[in-house]
Amino acid sequence: MSPYADAVARLSPVDAAAGRAAAQLHDRLTKPRGALGRIETLGAQLAAISAVVPPPPPAPAAVAVFAGDHGVLAQGVTPWPKEVTAQMVATFLAGGAAINVFARQLGASVTVVDVGVDADLPSAPGLRAAKVRRGTRDLAVEAALDRADVLAALDVGAGVAADLVGGGAGALVTGDMGIGNTTPSAAVIAALTGRPADDVTGRGTGIDDATLARKVTAVESGLRRLPDDAGPLDVLAEVGGLEIAALAGFVVGGAAARVPVVVDGVIALAGTMAAAALVPDALGYCVAGHRSTEPGASVALGHLGLEPVLDLGLRLGEGTGACLALPVLEVAARVLAEMATFDAAGVTDNG
Amino acid sequence: MSPYADAVARLSPVDAAAGRAAAQLHDRLTKPRGALGRIETLGAQLAAISAVVPPPPPAPAAVAVFAGDHGVLAQGVTPWPKEVTAQMVATFLAGGAAINVFARQLGASVTVVDVGVDADLPSAPGLRAAKVRRGTRDLAVEAALDRADVLAALDVGAGVAADLVGGGAGALVTGDMGIGNTTPSAAVIAALTGRPADDVTGRGTGIDDATLARKVTAVESGLRRLPDDAGPLDVLAEVGGLEIAALAGFVVGGAAARVPVVVDGVIALAGTMAAAALVPDALGYCVAGHRSTEPGASVALGHLGLEPVLDLGLRLGEGTGACLALPVLEVAARVLAEMATFDAAGVTDNG
Repeated sequence: MSPYADAVARLSPVDAAAGRAAAQLHDRLTKPRGALGRIETLGAQLAAISAVVPPPPPAPAAVAVFAGDHGVLAQGVTPWPKEVTAQMVATFLAGGAAINVFARQLGASVTVVDVGVDADLPSAPGLRAAKVRRGTRDLAVEAALDRADVLAALDVGAGVAADLVGGGAGALVTGDMGIGNTTPSAAVIAALTGRPADDVTGRGTGIDDATLARKVTAVESGLRRLPDDAGPLDVLAEVGGLEIAALAGFVVGGAAARVPVVVDGVIALAGTMAAAALVPDALGYCVAGHRSTEPGASVALGHLGLEPVLDLGLRLGEGTGACLALPVLEVAARVLAEMATFDAAGVTDNG
Repeated sequence: MSPYADAVARLSPVDAAAGRAAAQLHDRLTKPRGALGRIETLGAQLAAISAVVPPPPPAPAAVAVFAGDHGVLAQGVTPWPKEVTAQMVATFLAGGAAINVFARQLGASVTVVDVGVDADLPSAPGLRAAKVRRGTRDLAVEAALDRADVLAALDVGAGVAADLVGGGAGALVTGDMGIGNTTPSAAVIAALTGRPADDVTGRGTGIDDATLARKVTAVESGLRRLPDDAGPLDVLAEVGGLEIAALAGFVVGGAAARVPVVVDGVIALAGTMAAAALVPDALGYCVAGHRSTEPGASVALGHLGLEPVLDLGLRLGEGTGACLALPVLEVAARVLAEMATFDAAGVTDNG
């Protein structure tokens, strides 16, 4: 069986009973009921994910940075040249990019996955060669991918997730790199939410008004080709990207392995939307790490019903925002394992 | 010289030039300009605090939990009995409270400071005996403290800050414990902002409507005794608390030692407001760790112009919310020290 099909077959819903048991335990710990707010709901989610109370700490975490290129650059949607994708992959492998710094500080590993960079990348430690094709076609004028490409990318993502969890990861973090990739992300989010291109297309790395207008037009052109009844695989093929499809497979793979998948910004959310459309039970394993400033991110978060842990005005991608949520998750797990109960501590409860 | 007077004498403003130099360095790192949002502004603040670019990581962090009791409990402002203050101190010392779990996970030490618990506490490792008096008087009917008590508590806080930094702490975290202490915190914030009691008085541990009404009345009664031209020392004496005054001294002490002071919720913010009123230059060293759900916390944050790092619905105190911001600060410092520049990484810049 392919890695993605295997993950779909193994995936089961989160354990709601374990989540409720965690909530009941919270009420006996030495603090006013509910006083830890989101730490309590995250702890309950981790219990539901692992089906254990207290849940194991979601550590060590493993970041997978899926890299791919985009034919839509022909539309002038970004001032950054395509070559920067491969240059940034080299920077990741040298340890000098933001995600490297974030991951080192937070105790996470970084695996870079070439799922579709339009360059020949020399093999290197930390680089997983899994190129499905050299970039997408221009989604503004034709289907970005063949359906077979999408299926292959789903397999890449699910396979990476399985390998990382098999290697001991207790949490997965979605990372991405691909010059131009906020454009297909906006298109995927628009297609899967029914929202117009204007609502979900943003300034990405910080583009000017004229570039933004070209970007919205490109998204609209791609969306126009999609039939009303397009499914998530159709959407990924027509207007998606290789890293987006791989991220969808990664989410499904993490859920199948019963670990939390910490989702980063708008690219990861496009992948998560596709994953949730393909396998709805995967969503219970997802934690939105942060709220990116990209408008499509907020649209996707709202559509998925995910409340981000952090809101720090980040718009970098790579998995950086998601990494910052890891300590919060670790604390949420440890509260359930390590805090004293009122009874055990001899503290008078007011309840 | 007393610890507080010494801190005031040594305190100088943050180094704005170092902050600007950090911002300029950010613009040369391998990321779109501004893409790390709040991480960049925090990095610049850390540079301004330490007067060094890149700033040293704000680690290890040291949490000081200042504990005191409150005569205003006579007004029925909380369902929790006063004894819980001492019981929670024992829980802190046994390592079973929320702040212990948070601090362990985040690599911070915890020092508990008895600045005013109304009980004889046996000496114990991790407990600093610095009782100024056994709790406050009832602020609803008379001055909570003498001015000499306030000055002594400021000394306790400044002395703890100096000792922790002297012992190697790279960041300080404000912690507190005191049943009933959201009531004097609301009163201090109301007095120093000019806002009515209604606007700043909240449900603390989760009190019912009748208890909240008594709490607002208690705050109003205390505020009525304050002259229009009351200074921060008057406010602390009339309606404050021993842990609040000690926290004010702790903030000033941390600022004098040029380390970031990560501020927790409404009790810490009451102390920070007093500190900023006493020594305005102290404020530049403060980072608001999170936004507590207490309404007084948001009023104080707005008045001080502090934007909290996290907003997770916490209302526990102890320093828990502030601790969660520590990894974000550490990442902010390390980005400036460890990220590659466009030039060094051979990445094409679009600027």
